[in-house]
Amino acid sequence: MTVEFWFLIGAALVFWMQAGFAMCECGFTRAKNAGNILMKNLMDFCIGTVVFSLLGYTLMMGEDALFGLIGVPNMDMFTHFKEFIASPESGDFTGASTFVFNLVFCATTATIVSGAMAERTKFSAYCIYSAVISMIVYPIEAHWIWGGGWLSQIGFHDYAGSCAIHMVGGIAGLVGAAILGPRIGKYQRDKSGKVTKVNAIPGHNLPIAALGVFILWLGWYGFNGAAATTPSELSSIFMTTTIAPAVATCTTMIFTWIKNGKPDVSMCLNASLAGLVGITAGCDALDAIGAGVVGIVSGLLVVIFVEFLDLKAHIDDPVGAVGVHMANGIWGTVAVGLLANPDAPAGLSGLFYTGSVSQLGLQCLGVVSVGIYTTVLLYITFKIIAKTNGLRAAPEDEISGLDISEHGLPSAYADFSVSQYSKYGGTVSEDVVVVRGTTPPAEAVPVKKVPAFDTETDAQGHKFTKVEIICKEERLYHLKEALNQLGISGMTVSHVMGYGEQKGHTELYRGVPLETNLLPKVQVDIVISAIPLRDVIETAKKALYTGHIGDGKIFVYDVENVVKVRTGEEGHDALQDLD
Amino acid sequence: MTVEFWFLIGAALVFWMQAGFAMCECGFTRAKNAGNILMKNLMDFCIGTVVFSLLGYTLMMGEDALFGLIGVPNMDMFTHFKEFIASPESGDFTGASTFVFNLVFCATTATIVSGAMAERTKFSAYCIYSAVISMIVYPIEAHWIWGGGWLSQIGFHDYAGSCAIHMVGGIAGLVGAAILGPRIGKYQRDKSGKVTKVNAIPGHNLPIAALGVFILWLGWYGFNGAAATTPSELSSIFMTTTIAPAVATCTTMIFTWIKNGKPDVSMCLNASLAGLVGITAGCDALDAIGAGVVGIVSGLLVVIFVEFLDLKAHIDDPVGAVGVHMANGIWGTVAVGLLANPDAPAGLSGLFYTGSVSQLGLQCLGVVSVGIYTTVLLYITFKIIAKTNGLRAAPEDEISGLDISEHGLPSAYADFSVSQYSKYGGTVSEDVVVVRGTTPPAEAVPVKKVPAFDTETDAQGHKFTKVEIICKEERLYHLKEALNQLGISGMTVSHVMGYGEQKGHTELYRGVPLETNLLPKVQVDIVISAIPLRDVIETAKKALYTGHIGDGKIFVYDVENVVKVRTGEEGHDALQDLD
Amino acid sequence: MTVEFWFLIGAALVFWMQAGFAMCECGFTRAKNAGNILMKNLMDFCIGTVVFSLLGYTLMMGEDALFGLIGVPNMDMFTHFKEFIASPESGDFTGASTFVFNLVFCATTATIVSGAMAERTKFSAYCIYSAVISMIVYPIEAHWIWGGGWLSQIGFHDYAGSCAIHMVGGIAGLVGAAILGPRIGKYQRDKSGKVTKVNAIPGHNLPIAALGVFILWLGWYGFNGAAATTPSELSSIFMTTTIAPAVATCTTMIFTWIKNGKPDVSMCLNASLAGLVGITAGCDALDAIGAGVVGIVSGLLVVIFVEFLDLKAHIDDPVGAVGVHMANGIWGTVAVGLLANPDAPAGLSGLFYTGSVSQLGLQCLGVVSVGIYTTVLLYITFKIIAKTNGLRAAPEDEISGLDISEHGLPSAYADFSVSQYSKYGGTVSEDVVVVRGTTPPAEAVPVKKVPAFDTETDAQGHKFTKVEIICKEERLYHLKEALNQLGISGMTVSHVMGYGEQKGHTELYRGVPLETNLLPKVQVDIVISAIPLRDVIETAKKALYTGHIGDGKIFVYDVENVVKVRTGEEGHDALQDLD
Repeated sequence: MTVEFWFLIGAALVFWMQAGFAMCECGFTRAKNAGNILMKNLMDFCIGTVVFSLLGYTLMMGEDALFGLIGVPNMDMFTHFKEFIASPESGDFTGASTFVFNLVFCATTATIVSGAMAERTKFSAYCIYSAVISMIVYPIEAHWIWGGGWLSQIGFHDYAGSCAIHMVGGIAGLVGAAILGPRIGKYQRDKSGKVTKVNAIPGHNLPIAALGVFILWLGWYGFNGAAATTPSELSSIFMTTTIAPAVATCTTMIFTWIKNGKPDVSMCLNASLAGLVGITAGCDALDAIGAGVVGIVSGLLVVIFVEFLDLKAHIDDPVGAVGVHMANGIWGTVAVGLLANPDAPAGLSGLFYTGSVSQLGLQCLGVVSVGIYTTVLLYITFKIIAKTNGLRAAPEDEISGLDISEHGLPSAYADFSVSQYSKYGGTVSEDVVVVRGTTPPAEAVPVKKVPAFDTETDAQGHKFTKVEIICKEERLYHLKEALNQLGISGMTVSHVMGYGEQKGHTELYRGVPLETNLLPKVQVDIVISAIPLRDVIETAKKALYTGHIGDGKIFVYDVENVVKVRTGEEGHDALQDLD
Repeated sequence: MTVEFWFLIGAALVFWMQAGFAMCECGFTRAKNAGNILMKNLMDFCIGTVVFSLLGYTLMMGEDALFGLIGVPNMDMFTHFKEFIASPESGDFTGASTFVFNLVFCATTATIVSGAMAERTKFSAYCIYSAVISMIVYPIEAHWIWGGGWLSQIGFHDYAGSCAIHMVGGIAGLVGAAILGPRIGKYQRDKSGKVTKVNAIPGHNLPIAALGVFILWLGWYGFNGAAATTPSELSSIFMTTTIAPAVATCTTMIFTWIKNGKPDVSMCLNASLAGLVGITAGCDALDAIGAGVVGIVSGLLVVIFVEFLDLKAHIDDPVGAVGVHMANGIWGTVAVGLLANPDAPAGLSGLFYTGSVSQLGLQCLGVVSVGIYTTVLLYITFKIIAKTNGLRAAPEDEISGLDISEHGLPSAYADFSVSQYSKYGGTVSEDVVVVRGTTPPAEAVPVKKVPAFDTETDAQGHKFTKVEIICKEERLYHLKEALNQLGISGMTVSHVMGYGEQKGHTELYRGVPLETNLLPKVQVDIVISAIPLRDVIETAKKALYTGHIGDGKIFVYDVENVVKVRTGEEGHDALQDLD
Repeated sequence: MTVEFWFLIGAALVFWMQAGFAMCECGFTRAKNAGNILMKNLMDFCIGTVVFSLLGYTLMMGEDALFGLIGVPNMDMFTHFKEFIASPESGDFTGASTFVFNLVFCATTATIVSGAMAERTKFSAYCIYSAVISMIVYPIEAHWIWGGGWLSQIGFHDYAGSCAIHMVGGIAGLVGAAILGPRIGKYQRDKSGKVTKVNAIPGHNLPIAALGVFILWLGWYGFNGAAATTPSELSSIFMTTTIAPAVATCTTMIFTWIKNGKPDVSMCLNASLAGLVGITAGCDALDAIGAGVVGIVSGLLVVIFVEFLDLKAHIDDPVGAVGVHMANGIWGTVAVGLLANPDAPAGLSGLFYTGSVSQLGLQCLGVVSVGIYTTVLLYITFKIIAKTNGLRAAPEDEISGLDISEHGLPSAYADFSVSQYSKYGGTVSEDVVVVRGTTPPAEAVPVKKVPAFDTETDAQGHKFTKVEIICKEERLYHLKEALNQLGISGMTVSHVMGYGEQKGHTELYRGVPLETNLLPKVQVDIVISAIPLRDVIETAKKALYTGHIGDGKIFVYDVENVVKVRTGEEGHDALQDLD
C-alpha cells in the first residue's frame, strides 16, 4: 500500500471537519436557526464540489500562468479520465487524489464564513458567495501558495493552511459580518448610534458545539498530516498538532479564570480551535517548544480578539470565527518566521532559532498580500450580492428565525419533548434540608392575621379555592410531601419564569454580561374545598421557607366549580380522590 | 504495511455508519421513541454479529454450492483459528479480515430497515427479523453477488452494494412498513377507508439527524473504498463518492426550492444519502461525469419517491429509508449498465459509452432477481412474526411512546432542562421597534371605556387583581420594560401555545402540509394592588400593539389574597418589593 | 508507507475516544452540569498533554530504573528534537509517534474518572487530580506494564490496557466517588444514617450518550489495534474487538429483559463498553470463542456490579464508570490467563486451552499489585486535595448546577427552544378514537346536576368565565376539534405536570425504581362569554372521556374583564373572532 492511501484517508478526515463546523456553529447559535446553519454547512461542501470541479481546481492546480498569479483552467478531469486516475511516473499522487484532497480543503475555507455571518444572512446570498469563494477566491490564492504560484516560488511556507484557508476564511467572515451588521438585539444604541449596551446571545446546544470541536480536532490530524509522506514528518506533525491546541486551551482556561473569576467553557472550546489554527502553517516546521509557544499565544489571542471584536469594534460574530480563524491564521503564519526549527522536517530558519529574518519577511509578505487580496475581492462580492440579490434576511424573518422563514421548517426540534416522569423524584430529597437556609422555618416569622381568611374554612356549601404557589424548583419535593400529608390529593405543576432582579454577581458569557432577571420557578396549582385554606398556606410556608430572597409567593383565588371527567362528578366530590 | 490495513480501516469506517444510521433515524423520529430507535440500531449490529459469525458468514463466503445459490456453511472461524487469521499465500486477506469486513456490510443492510419501520414496531419483533436478515436473507443474496455465486459468475457488477445492501434493506423496509401500516395519526381516512388527509410528523432533533448524515458520508468512503487495492482505484472511488452526493444535494436543493418555494433541509440531507447510495454500485466503474449524472437523478428521485410513497401510496416511512435506499439502490445498480466508462478502474462497458446493452441487461437481471428474492423472503418472515410474536406495538404503547412501553425509559431526555436566565435579555431589544408594525401605537385605537373598571383603582382595603397577558414572545422584552417603569415589581412568565388559524401560506415538511394552528406565545401573570388596573392595561396595550393579528389578549381576575413566603407578609404588603 | 502510519492513525482514533467519553458522560448526567462535564473531558486531555510531555512520558518510557519501578525522566523531546522525530535504526517508531501514542492512552485513563465523580466535584480539584494521574500515577504503573518495568519483564500480558488503563481509571473513580459521597438526593437515610431509599437520577440526553458509545467503539479499533504490525495480528484484533462487545450487549439485553421485564437501553450501552474493556487486555491473545466468553461475562458483570454499587454499597457513580472500567478491566486482565489461545498472535497459554496456570498467576499478580498501588496513591491524592483545595462543590452550587456555579454558564442549552407549530397536528387524529377506552362516551355516566351552574348562561351583561381543562396530551386534538365545533375561537395550551399516584408497575432505571407521580398533562384555558358554560363542560367531558384514571378535570373561574390588544376592544367584543 502506498502513501497515497494515507493521503486519501487524510482527505476523508478533512471532509469530516465539515461535520465539526456544522455542529459547532449549530450549537453556538440559537435554536430557531439550527436547520439553516446545518443546511449552509451542508451546501457549501456540495456547491463547492460542483464549482471547484468545474473551474476552481484547475485555476488552483493548473499550469502556472500570468507570472504565478493563476493556474490555467482545463477540463482534463472530465475529458481525460483515464489519465486523471493514473499514477504519474514521478511517484506523485493521481489527479483524482489531488482533486479530492484540494476540494476538502477548499470547502473548509468556505464553511468558516457561515459561522461569522450566522443567524441573519439570506440563504440565497450564502449559496452565491459560497460558490464565489470556492470557484475563484480560494483557488487563486491557493495557487499562489500551493499551486506553484508566486508565493510558493519565493519560499513562503504555509504547510496546511493557517493563511491559505483559515486567515482567508476568517477575513471573509469579518468583511461579511461587518457589511451585514449585527443581529437584532445584539447591541443597543442611543440616538446618535453609539452603542450603550452589548448583549450576550448564548447558543442553544453546548454539547453539540463541543462535539463539533472534538470532530474538528480529530479531522485536523488529517488536515495537517495528510500530505506527510515519511514517518518522521507525520509523527512530528501529530505531535505539534496535539501540543499547540492543548496548551492553548490550558492558557485560555487560566486566562479566563483570572480575568472573569471562572473558567469559561465556550472560550476554551474556541481556544482548542485557535491552537489548531495557529499550528497549521508550521506543523512541520516547529518543534515541541515552538508548538507550545504557538499555543500560549493562540490561547490569549482568541480571548482578546473575540472580546475586542464584540465589545469594542461591535462587529457581531456569533461563533467567534474571526477570532479563531483570522487572528490565529495570521499568528500561525507569522509564527513560522519566528519559531521554525531547522531540525524540524521543513528545515526552515526561524528568527528565534537562527537569527535570520528572511523567512519572517516572507511570511509577513504572504499574510499582507493574501489579506489584501481577500479583503478586496470579498468586499466587492458582498457588495454586489447586497445590491442585487440582497445579503441580509428581512428583520421579521430574522426574528421568527431562518428555519421557518428560509426553509419552511417549523423547528429543528419540532417534536422534541421531555417526559417529566421522574424529574423530581431523585433529584432533591430530605438530605437537602440541612444544607439550605440557616433560619428556622416559618414559626419564627410573625404572621399578620388577615381576618378575611378566617371565614373560608367554615363556609358551607363547599366553597372552592385555588391556591397558586410560585417557588423554586428545588423546594418542590418538600412542598409536595408536605401537602400530601395534609391530604391534598391532586396538584398541577408547571415551569414558569419569575421576574426579579438577581442581586450580587453577574455572569459573563464570552466576556459579555448576561442579563439574569428571569429566573426559573415552578408554579403549583391546588384547588381545595374541605381542607382549610389557612392550613394549606401555613404548610406551604413551612415547606418553602429558607429565609432567602426568592422563597416564593402564594396567591389565592376563588373557584366557581370543578368537574372530574372520568366520573362526571362535580363540585366537592370531584376533589375527593387521587385520580 | 500491506493494503489489508486499509481494508480494516475501511471496515471500521463502515462500522461507524451504524452511528450514522442511529443518529439519523433518532433525529428524524419523535422524542418519545428516541431510546427505542437507538437501541434497535445498537442491537442489529450486536445480534447481527452473533448470527453472522454462527451461520451467515459462511453461507455467504463458504465454498459455492447448489449452482451458485449458497455457500457451504462451516465452523472454521471457531475450529481453525490459526488458519483463520493467517494470511493466505495468494496474497488475499485473512479470514478474520474478510469476516469483519463482510460483517459490517451485513449490519448495514439490517439497520436500514429500522428507519422505515420506526415508531411502531415491537422491539422483540425487531430482534427476530433483524436476526433473520443477518443470518439468512443477506448472506444468500450477497453470496450471489460477492461470494462467488451465480450473479458474480455471469458478470453482474455491484462494487459496494447499491443492490446487495441498499436495495435489499430498502425493500425489506418497504415490505415491513406496508405490512405494519402507518403510525397512528399519520393518515386520516373517511368511512370507506379512503385517505382524506396526510399529516406531517416532523422529527425531534435535526442537528442529530444532520450529524448522522455527515457520519454516513464519512463512513461511505470506507464503504465504497475499503476493497480498493491500488491508488488509481481508491482515488477514483473517492472522487465519484464525493461528486455524486454533492450533485444530488444541489439538485434536491434546487428542485425543492422551485417546487415548494423554499429549499427543504431534511430532503437535502436525504439527498446526500441518495447520491451516496446511487454511486455505490458503480463507484469504481463510472467517471466524474457519470457520477454527476447519477447525482442529478438521485436528487430528483429521492424527492419524487418519498412524496409518492407518502402522498400517493400512503405507506408510512418515517425517515425516508425506502426512497433513499431502495429507489436509489435500484437506480445505482442500473446506472452501471448505462454509465460505466471503460476507462474507469472496473473497465465495464456502459450503454452510453459503448452502445453495448449487455452490462445493462445483467444489471437489470440482478435487480429483478434479488428484488423478488428479498420481497418474498421478507414477506414470509414478517407474516410469520406477525402471526406468532406480533409485529406491531399495541396502540396505547405507540401513543405513549416505545421508550416507556418497551424499555421502561421515561424519556431519552428525562432530565433535560433549560435555564432561562438570559433568554430574553439579548434576543430582542429596542431596535426591533422600528421594524415591527407600521401603525402608530395604541393611541390610534379608540378605546371603549368599560365603566366596571373605574371602580377598581379607588377600592379601599387593597383589592387584589390578577392581570394575565398572552402575547408574542418577541414582545416580552418591551412589556417587561414598560411594566417595570410603571412600578410593577414581580411577574411570572411561562411558555404557552395559542390556538388560532394562521392566515396565509402553509409550510411544507417533506412535501406534506404542516398544521400550524398552535402558535408559541408567552403568558405573563401579574398581581396588582395599589397600581391602578387601567394603567396596567393601557401600558400593556402600548407595549404589545403592532396592529397585526396575534397581538394578544389581556384577562383580568379577582384575587383573594397573596402571601410572601420569606417574610410571612400577606395582602398588600406581600406585593411591595422586588423579591 | 510504513506501519507507523497506521500506528498514528490508531492514535488519532484513540484521541477520538475523548469525544466519546465527553458525549457519554454528558448524556448520562443532568442538563445543569452538561457544560461542566464537557469542560472536564476537554481539560483532562489538555492538562494531560502538558504534564505528560513535561514528566509523565519519560517516567513511563524512559530507561528502566529502580528495579523496574520507574523510567528515568529526561527532556529529550525538547532538547533533542531532531533525534526525537527520526526513525530509529531498529525499525521502531519515532519518539514523536511513541509520545503521541502513549499520550492519548494516558488521557483515556484520566477521563474515565470524571464520569464516576460527575455532578459534584469541584472543577479546580478535578484539574489537580487529573494532572496527578497523567503526570505520576499512570506513567509509573504503565512503566511496569509497557515501559519495560517489572511486570512486563515477568510476562504479565495487557495488550491495550484492561488493567493499565481501564482498571486504573475505574479504581480512581471508585476511590474518588467513595470519598466524595453521593450526589444530593441520591440516597435517603434515616437518622442512624441507614439508607432507606435509593433514587434513580436519569441523565438528560440519551442520543448524545449513545453517540458517545458508538464513538468509543469506533475509537477502540485504534485503541486495541494501533500497535499491531501484521495483517494477521490486526485482523485478529479487529475480530475479537467486534465479537466481545456485541456478545456482551446481547447478554445484557437478555439479562435485563429477564430480570426487569424489559430490555434496558442505557445498560446495553454500558454493556458494549464493558465488552470492549473486557477484550482489551487479550484482544491479541484470545480467539473468537474466547472473545465470546469474555463478552458473556462482561455483559452479566456490568449489570450486577452497577446495581451492587448503587443498591448495596451506596456509592454513587452517575455513569456506571466503575462497573464498566474497573470490574471489566479486572475481568479482562484475568481472562487472558484463562482464555488465551496459543494459536492467537500473542501465543500465550490460557488455563482452559493448555491447563497451565502460570499466565493466570501473572495476570492476578498484575491486577493485585497495580490495584493496590492505584488505590493507595489515589486515596492519598484525593485526601490531600480535600484538605487543601477542597474536593466537593458546595451544596448550593451542586443544586443550582456546576455550569452556573463553576463556569458562569447559565445553561448548556441557554437558547434552546422548540416551536410548537405542528406539535399536535399529525400526532394524534381521528383513528385514535377507536383504540382508546372501551366504555362509551360520557352519556353513560350519570351527571349530578349542580344547580349553581344554571344561572350562568342567562346572565346578562356578558359575564366572563374561564374554563381550565387539565387532560392527557393525546386527547388534546379531540378536545380542540370539539370546542371548535362549539364555536370557541381561542384557547391557550400549556404543558403542565399532574401529580398523582401511578397505579400498577414501576419502571426501573438501571435497576433502580423510578418515581412516577408527576405525569405530563396539558392545560387548556378558555374564556367564554356568550357560549353557555354547561355546553362547554359537556363537550369537554365527551371529548376527554375514556373511562380510565387520568381523564382529567375541569375548573371554572370567574373573569372580570378581557381586552384584545390589536383592536382595543374589551369585554364580550374581545372574544368574538379567531384572532
